Amino acid sequence: MASRTATELVHPERDQLRFTTVLAALSDPVRLAIVVRLADLGPEGEQACTTFELPVSKSTQSGHFKVLREAGVIRQRDEGTRRLNRLRRDDLDVRFPGLLDLVIPQGRQVVSGR
Amino acid sequence: MASRTATELVHPERDQLRFTTVLAALSDPVRLAIVVRLADLGPEGEQACTTFELPVSKSTQSGHFKVLREAGVIRQRDEGTRRLNRLRRDDLDVRFPGLLDLVIPQGRQVVSGR
Repeated sequence: MASRTATELVHPERDQLRFTTVLAALSDPVRLAIVVRLADLGPEGEQACTTFELPVSKSTQSGHFKVLREAGVIRQRDEGTRRLNRLRRDDLDVRFPGLLDLVIPQGRQVVSGR
Repeated sequence: MASRTATELVHPERDQLRFTTVLAALSDPVRLAIVVRLADLGPEGEQACTTFELPVSKSTQSGHFKVLREAGVIRQRDEGTRRLNRLRRDDLDVRFPGLLDLVIPQGRQVVSGR
């Protein structure tokens, strides 16, 4: 845990977000499920990685969070032994207007098995 | 050429299109360039694979067209030795309303280097 919480979490700045990288990050059912869950928490909502109950192993889950963070879709921060996640709604809405409004309802359908 | 034109071109039906697969297909600059070009041709516009002048090798190019076709983003048909491409605008607009309207302008920015 000590080594994990010591990891520096790199986030791209708003103007570094790339459309193709964001689309790639969103093009996976597990990652869409994470985005939908975070969207439901509202603008300042945060949720710890360990509480998402996703149907994949912990290491696979970590990989998905990393892809989302590195694409700029989520912001992560460590608080004690927990890693908290927040959707970068403001940054995404400014850079790619309408994208989350489209992706979130589609993501809900993907999560619910269509 | 004979073997290529004899290849059966498989296309998913409209109700088989998957959101995550379509996003993945659109998450590449070369494939976005293809989509933008086809969108500019209008609803019935078709363009031969060999005339796109993309900055990648022919085999890489073929791979990109295949990804787009298998995701249901484009429809391909062979006419003599030419393989013609058309954007599946109707199918995409019905299944994922607003997606192409969002992706095409963003794609133009990607193509023009932002």
